[in-house]
This record gives sequence, structure tokens and C-alpha cells, in this order.
Amino acid sequence: MSEAEAGAGVFGASRPDEMTVQVLRDMANRLRIHSIRAASTSTSSSAAEIMSVLFFYTMRYKQADPDNPDSDRFVLSKRLPYINVATGWPGQGLGAACGMAYTGKYFDKASYRVFCLLGEGESSGGSVWEALAFASYYNLDNLLVIFDVSRIGHCSSEHCIDVYQKRCEAFGWNTYVVDGRNVEILCQVFSQAAQVRGKPTAVVAKTFKGRGMPNVEDAENWYGRPMPKEKADAIIKLIESQIQTKRSLVPLPPIEDSPAVSIMDINRISPSVYEVGDMMSTRKACGLALAKLGHANDRIIVLHGDTKTSNFAEEFKKEHSERFIECFVAEQNMVSVALGCAARDRTIAFACTFAAFFTRTFDQIRMGASSQININLIGFHCGVSVGDDSSYHMALEDLAMFRAIPNCTIFYPSDAISTEHAVYLASDTKGMCFIRTSQAETSVIYARQETFQIGKAKVIRQSDNDKVTVIGAGVTLHEALVAADEIAKEDISIRVIDLFTIKPLDSTTIISNAKATGGRIITVEDHYPEGGIGEAVCAAVSMDPDIVVHQLAVMGVPRSERSSEALDVSGISARHIIVAVKCMLLN
Amino acid sequence: MSEAEAGAGVFGASRPDEMTVQVLRDMANRLRIHSIRAASTSTSSSAAEIMSVLFFYTMRYKQADPDNPDSDRFVLSKRLPYINVATGWPGQGLGAACGMAYTGKYFDKASYRVFCLLGEGESSGGSVWEALAFASYYNLDNLLVIFDVSRIGHCSSEHCIDVYQKRCEAFGWNTYVVDGRNVEILCQVFSQAAQVRGKPTAVVAKTFKGRGMPNVEDAENWYGRPMPKEKADAIIKLIESQIQTKRSLVPLPPIEDSPAVSIMDINRISPSVYEVGDMMSTRKACGLALAKLGHANDRIIVLHGDTKTSNFAEEFKKEHSERFIECFVAEQNMVSVALGCAARDRTIAFACTFAAFFTRTFDQIRMGASSQININLIGFHCGVSVGDDSSYHMALEDLAMFRAIPNCTIFYPSDAISTEHAVYLASDTKGMCFIRTSQAETSVIYARQETFQIGKAKVIRQSDNDKVTVIGAGVTLHEALVAADEIAKEDISIRVIDLFTIKPLDSTTIISNAKATGGRIITVEDHYPEGGIGEAVCAAVSMDPDIVVHQLAVMGVPRSERSSEALDVSGISARHIIVAVKCMLLN
Repeated sequence: MSEAEAGAGVFGASRPDEMTVQVLRDMANRLRIHSIRAASTSTSSSAAEIMSVLFFYTMRYKQADPDNPDSDRFVLSKRLPYINVATGWPGQGLGAACGMAYTGKYFDKASYRVFCLLGEGESSGGSVWEALAFASYYNLDNLLVIFDVSRIGHCSSEHCIDVYQKRCEAFGWNTYVVDGRNVEILCQVFSQAAQVRGKPTAVVAKTFKGRGMPNVEDAENWYGRPMPKEKADAIIKLIESQIQTKRSLVPLPPIEDSPAVSIMDINRISPSVYEVGDMMSTRKACGLALAKLGHANDRIIVLHGDTKTSNFAEEFKKEHSERFIECFVAEQNMVSVALGCAARDRTIAFACTFAAFFTRTFDQIRMGASSQININLIGFHCGVSVGDDSSYHMALEDLAMFRAIPNCTIFYPSDAISTEHAVYLASDTKGMCFIRTSQAETSVIYARQETFQIGKAKVIRQSDNDKVTVIGAGVTLHEALVAADEIAKEDISIRVIDLFTIKPLDSTTIISNAKATGGRIITVEDHYPEGGIGEAVCAAVSMDPDIVVHQLAVMGVPRSERSSEALDVSGISARHIIVAVKCMLLN
Repeated sequence: MSEAEAGAGVFGASRPDEMTVQVLRDMANRLRIHSIRAASTSTSSSAAEIMSVLFFYTMRYKQADPDNPDSDRFVLSKRLPYINVATGWPGQGLGAACGMAYTGKYFDKASYRVFCLLGEGESSGGSVWEALAFASYYNLDNLLVIFDVSRIGHCSSEHCIDVYQKRCEAFGWNTYVVDGRNVEILCQVFSQAAQVRGKPTAVVAKTFKGRGMPNVEDAENWYGRPMPKEKADAIIKLIESQIQTKRSLVPLPPIEDSPAVSIMDINRISPSVYEVGDMMSTRKACGLALAKLGHANDRIIVLHGDTKTSNFAEEFKKEHSERFIECFVAEQNMVSVALGCAARDRTIAFACTFAAFFTRTFDQIRMGASSQININLIGFHCGVSVGDDSSYHMALEDLAMFRAIPNCTIFYPSDAISTEHAVYLASDTKGMCFIRTSQAETSVIYARQETFQIGKAKVIRQSDNDKVTVIGAGVTLHEALVAADEIAKEDISIRVIDLFTIKPLDSTTIISNAKATGGRIITVEDHYPEGGIGEAVCAAVSMDPDIVVHQLAVMGVPRSERSSEALDVSGISARHIIVAVKCMLLN
């Protein structure tokens, strides 16, 4: 559909009456005045007509109840009422909108629609194209995206309307091109889109920055810059003179067909089947625990990066296929979709991929944490212990990344039992959780009745005569246990601590045990030294003059090694722990 | 052009003779056998014909001199000879290829071409679409990308040929669709692409995984999985039986028209113009230093994220416009392009954006560091001290990220003079450098003749009677100086250290000064506590029982504040330093 066609009024059926059109125009102008007063800038006024039509004609919602599950959703790149995710400037909003639309269509099977407004700069980011591909692949016909394309964009002096239209169509979207200043057309197009089945709709709206402001409209020099007060006052006066009515419109009420759900009701989970001494990787135990958790609450969902290269969540997919979302090799979008799915507490989302590939989503993670939506990320293929693969696939910086996220809970379980507990605890923990899993088969060390708490470490080997406290997690905990057995033969006993959560860190347990072992700590981790377990422990004991910490960690980019040799080559095996203990005792 | 057309042989002009075609087929089969022997898997054999044609018919290069500047470039997602960037599996290769092509076309103005082979999974990542947009925006007609689209891909049972074709065309690429098994057509298409002006070329090649392997070709169950030896042997025998010649082909020599360049010859830079006490932000000083450096070597280039929202590199752009690359809001691609530009030592690249937005490029940074290409990243808008903006734009985790990159050099200059030095040092430092700059205007504290070294901190305030060592960087160093002046009125003197580089960290200076001040250190940083300066210092002194460290850092997501109040609200102002000093002396 071309702009000319839209202008000719082909959407007769859903045409608003003349009075409604005028009121929408007036409300757009009031919004425009408000934006000038608030910011003394012309930047955000290009979309005033779009916002007016969306909020007072198209969208169904309850003004007094912003979190109502039946209301239409709106996602913008700024914080406003009715926005579920605090999407930062470029690009992430569309992924979150995809998650909301997927939830509406496939989990809630409800009538609410999802609207997303993107600016032009926002559309250069690759995550936008990941989201466009996702939405068409999953036929999200309850999703409508408006590209606010103003003259002042990348295509220098030309509007990039054609470019947007072609690209959206190539990505499989039902696409309209409209004049973003024409409220009548906007009303019609937004209604029309609701009739389209099987495809998401993109509305490419040609707008002008500073719309309605003489000498500012379409003039590059005011873009994003403050305007002198006298100029602003004059412009406001002019816009006011164009307002013809005092009426306002009331949004349509939502269609109340969302199911009642509770993400808090997690049924009692069947007891663990593992026996102490059983061999299993925490990666495998984590996948199995997810599948089991899926039976405990029917709003547990799993999102997964390219399943062609990993069968991590195979069990969940088998047992709960309708709650499994394949996200392909597009991790940024996967995290944003998870945030959208979990918004308004509609689901408990677990997003899983190679831990190394979460580095691609650091910005989404930053944003997600500050929006305080509950999502859970599971990383596999961590550390040098995966062996064989190229170093590119090994996560050796993931702890540094997640530790730097305020309020993120980081689980690093060391056996199958504690992995199950990590998954269950994550499912009802507020905010963002990360679970780090390992490939190597290790023995079950905890009994079935063991209980776990966030921020509580376990002392798993101790005696009155311990000389050093060794702190490990995951594979290195098992190395510490081997070292403890070995060095015991030389009559040296060491204490071993399993952190369980890296953040929050159990400083109390660390400090008291360090003091009981001559103030000596050795940390050993399958991660680079920076930002990992060692530094966390150093910081935790930094005000205590009588505690020293020796860090064992992976130094420098590892070469690929067989799993069995990798820990030793990287200096984090039992042998290295023993050497470190002896050195420490010599000093 | 459709597949059918290509099959009809419309490229008569560049058609290879029959013998050449047969030799190329045979070489493809030898490659296929080699890949089965090496990996016992069918995965990589789909592109054997493509590789054969590229390496023995199309590409011009010197086999004995892989780094020859005149040779055509090839970028693949695996490490192979003639690959400049160790691109990880999905997506980053194309951005690097764009950087090489941009360099060839605009800086070297040379004949070499750039070829990039992408797998299907690789093409879901958003950074691929950022790169596609970049290449067409800059008319990189010396770039040819081959999409190896096999039946076993995202479009389930169908080839996604049409989808790729439409999307590439929508992104402005000259696009061919071919049968990837047909060496004759590949020869013709690759030659044809060289004649196209003003547009990059995409070749969408329909291939089959396990090509040439009976019962394996196109069968999903062998994808990426090891094959039993007997089966592999039987397949090898069958492929061998199809080989008809023993001949091999010699690649064409490169056209020797690249200019001789040296990124080592950095001319003497004119002396600094700043006086002690001048007020200037390190952000501004950094932009000016870049412009100045541009005169010292004509291979200095600057890449910049969306210049609409920041004038950081305005001066460089003004003085060296031909060496400035606008990268829009597509930071992942920006970093990959910078890596490509700097490959084979063709340029000294500085890529600049909001430091917070480098989080989007963490994966590119990981890869870039392991490829050991020299690139420099400059981050602005760091910490709470930027004031006013939403927390989303503040970088508070960038140090944690860059510290976790092996061998990355991190500069955090504190005044205009040290900023200039940071820029000059970065320009001739091997590997990756990051420079963290601040918005706040701060006074020049160093004299013009001061010299700086990587890994050497400066003790900038000291006396024999110092009670505590305060370590700062950037804005917090100035807070430490204010604190020192204030607290001196109460007859308490403190030592102040400017780290200059956060990595490598000057442990020697830190430890010796800590010991001279009663073993007391206070760190103060405009960054979250995790992975930042405080933890780096804690780790550096962790084996020394007589040193205690108190960390002042930004705790939790900050609210937006005015710049002047932000440091105080976040607990990292002079006032907080004074309180911390007094508390420490009470203990």
C-alpha cells in the first residue's frame, strides 16, 4: 500500500468521524505543547499524532490500572506510563514487544494487542532486525510496530521511507506507508492491521521533527537541542491557536479474556532422585530440573538460542513443547523477548544459551536488570573445562559481566542436587538470576534432603586442624576436594567451601572460616581473574588485615585442550591447589 | 537473477574452460575428503565448491605471503590461513570484511577484493544486518558475501533462498542466487560481481550439508555429529572415485597497487597547550588529541557511533574528514569494522561511542582481543558524574567488562595532559586499548613536560606524615584532591594516587605507598564496585596481610541527578572520602 493510496482513504470501514478526528488533532497538539514545556526541545514532537491516535483511539486499556493483564501493551524507547520495559534508546523495545505479543498469542491466547514505536536511530541496531525476523517467523499478528521516520535521519536529505518499506516487507511483515501527521489515516491503518492474520504489521510513518513549530519543523539545527524560552513561548502560542475543541477522548476498555495466572504458585516439586556419588554434569542436571519445574507451574517457559548446536533444553522441549521458544542465533533478541514474556508477571522465563554468547546481550541484561522484571538466564559451556572447543565458545568473563549488574543473583552450583535447588530458587526470585553450569561430569556431593539458600555458602570439608580455606565453585570445587584428599596424606588438612551463589556472596562464612584457618584463603575458579570469584572474595575480606587471599584463575586466552587436561594446563587443577596451599604455608 | 537464469549460463564472458571446471570440482572433492578426515563430520563440506572456486579461480593472492597487503582478503567464521580476523561462529565476520573493504576502497584505493563466507546460523545475528546496511550505505563494491544456505536451516524443510534474496536486495545489495554445487556458475558469478560498481554483491548459494556423501547429504541426523570410521572411509572412497584429474590450479597473483604504509611512523606530536589549572573535560581533551594525532600519521582513522547524538570527534572529522567513518547506532558493526580496518596493519583505528554502548559489543571485543589486532576504543559519558541523563546512558560497568579482556590496556586519564598521553600511547600499543573519558570539567593537574607510561601510576599528593592512601581516577581523583585539602585543615594528611592505567595496574606503587601510610587504602571510583578499580586494588594487595582496602563506588542503579550532586548522592564525593578516612583512622 502506498502513501497515496492511504491518503485516498481506502479504509472506509474504520474511518473515524470528523469530530473524533479534530479531537485527536487537538490532543496531539496538547501533547506537543506538553513536550515543549517539559523539555524545551522539539525532539519528541514528531510522533504526537501517532501517540494521540494510539492512546485515545486505537488502544484498549484501563487508565486507572496500568498493569491490567487485558490491556493493550505499548513499548517506547523512553519511560512513560503503560510501558512495561524501560527500553533504552536504540533497539531493545521491539524485542520486548515481541515477547509480549508471543505471550498474548500463544500463552494467554488473549485479545490484547502490542504496539511499539521506534525512532529512526533506534532502527539501525541489529537487534531490531533480529526482532523483525522473530515476529514474522512466529506470525505475531497481534503486534504492530510504527517506524517514526523523520526527514532528519540516516538517508541525509531524503526520507528513507522506501528503504524501510522494502526491508520490512523482506522480513515478512505486512507493511503500510503513511503520512505520520494525518490522524485520520493513522486511525484507519491501526484498525486495518487488527484484521490481518498471520503477519505482524509495520507502519512506516513519515514524520517531521519539530512538527507544528514554524522554523523548527524539519530543521536540523534544533534537533535535540534546547530552545530559548521566548521561542518556545511563541511556538506554544501558535500551536494553541490551532486547537479547536476542548473535548477529550476516553480509551476503549480492554477485552477481558486473559487467563488468571499466578507465577507465585509453584507446586511442590518431586524429590530429587540423585544419590551421593552419582556422576552428572550440572549442565545436564539443569536441563532436567527445568523440565521438572515445568510441571510445577504452567507459566514456566524456556527460550533457547540455536537448538541446532545444543540440546541443553531437550527434556523441557519434549515435555512442554508449547512453552518452548526457539530463538535461533539471535541472543540479543532472545533476552529482550524473555523480558517481554515476563512483563506483567505473565510467565516465569528461563533463557538459555552458551554462557559466552550472553556477552552479546550485555546491554539487554543491563536494561533488564534496571526494569526489575524477573527473568532467569542459564549459561552453559563455561570455562576451560569444556575442553576441545575453540576458546571463543568458552565463557571466561561471564561472572564479571553478571556481577556488575546491580541486584543480579548469580548461582554457580557444583553438583546435580544444588543445581536443582538453583533452578527452583531462581524461579521465584525477584529480578534477574543467572545460573552458570558446567559440561564436565562431576559427582553428586549433597544429600537429597540438603537445603540451599541464596547467599549461603556450604562448608563441605572441615576439621579443627585446617590450615587453609579453599573456595571453589562448579568444577573447581571438585578439584579442591581432590586436593584435600591428596594433601591429607601429607597430614595437611584444608577446609573447602562451596559458594553456591557468587552474588550475593556469603562474606560471613568466608571470613569466619578464613579466621579459623590462619587467615589463609585460596580461591580457584574456571574464569579469568578479573571480576570473578577471586576478586569478589578479595573485596569481601579487604577490611580484614589478618586475611590473605591467593587467587587461582585462568590467565590469558586458553588454547583448546581436552577437557581432562584443560584445568591443569590453565593452572586451576587439584595439583595447582596443592602447590598453592604448600606455598602459602611456607610464608 | 534467478537460479534458473544462472544455470542457463548467461555469464558467457567469464566462463572457465572445461578442464578448469573439472579441476575445480576435483579440488572441491579433495577439500571434502580432507574435511571428513579432519573432523569425522559432514558439517563443513557444503561449501567445498565455493572454497575451491574462491581459492583456486577467483581470488588473487600470494600463497607464500599470507599477509601481503595487495592480496584479496577472505573472511570465514573459522580460523584458516588467509583469514585476518578470528571470527567466531555467528555473524562477526561480515563486519570485519566491511572494514577491510572500506579500507581497500577509501584508504588504500587499491584493487584487492574482500570475500566473506557466511553460514546460515551465522546470518540470524543482528550484527549481520548492521553490516549489510553499512556496506550498501558506503557502496562497497569490492566486497562479495556468500551466504551458504543449506536445506537444513531455519526455514525447516524448505530452502530459505527467497528470503535471503529479498532481504539482501532490500538492504541494497546486488544479489545473485546460485546452485552452490555448480563450480562453473560460481566462477562466473564471482567474476561478474567484480564488474558491478557502487554496490556490494551477495551470492546466495543453495548448498547441501554433507554434499557428496550418500545417505548423509541433506540428512539432518548427521549434522554436526561425528561419523563412524567405517562410514567415513566408505564415503571417502566414493568421493575419490569421482575425482578425474591430478592437476591443481595456481591462484592469480595480486595486483600490486596498495600504497606502502607504516602505522609505526607516528611523527612527533606538537607539544601540549594546556596550563596547570585550565579547566577541561577529559572527553573534550580526548577529541582534540585525536584530531592532533591525525596529523602525526595519515593512517589514523576514527569510527564513531551515531554522530547525531554526540559531537565527540567533531574536531577530527573537521580536520580529517576523509578518515572519519560514521557508523550510526550500530556499535557491534562499528567494532567489527574497526577490526577489519586495522587488520594487516593498514590503519590505526579509534572507535568511539558512549562507553555504556560498548556493552553491546562485548562479544566483538572478546573476539577482537583474541585476534590480537590493534584497535583502540574510546568511551565517553562514563559514570554518574555525567549527570542529568537516564542511568541507561551512564557507563558503570565498562571497567569490569574491559578488565575481563586478556591483554586489554585500559587508560583512565584524569586531566587534559594525561588524556593526550593516553591517546598517543594507545596509538602505538599492541592489541586492544580502551580509554575511559569523563564529561565533567576538571582542572589540568600535570605540567606539560610530564611523561606517562602504561602501568605506571602517579603519586600526586604526598608527605611523610600521610595516614591513608586514596586511589582515584578521572573525576574521583579530583574529589580526592579536594578531600586532601579539606582534611589537611584538621591536620590529617592523605596521600593521593592517580592510576592512569587501570590495566595493567601499578601494584608496586600501590603496595609501597599503602605501606608508607599505615597499610590503609581507600579506593574511590565512578563505577559499580564489581570488577572496577576497588576490586583490582583488593586483588593486587590480597597477599599482603598488613594492607586494608576500603572501597567507595556507586552502589545500585543511580537515579538521574545533576552532575554536581551526582557524585555526592552516589557516595563517591570528597565528603565521603573524608568520612571514610576518619572512620579508617578510628579503627
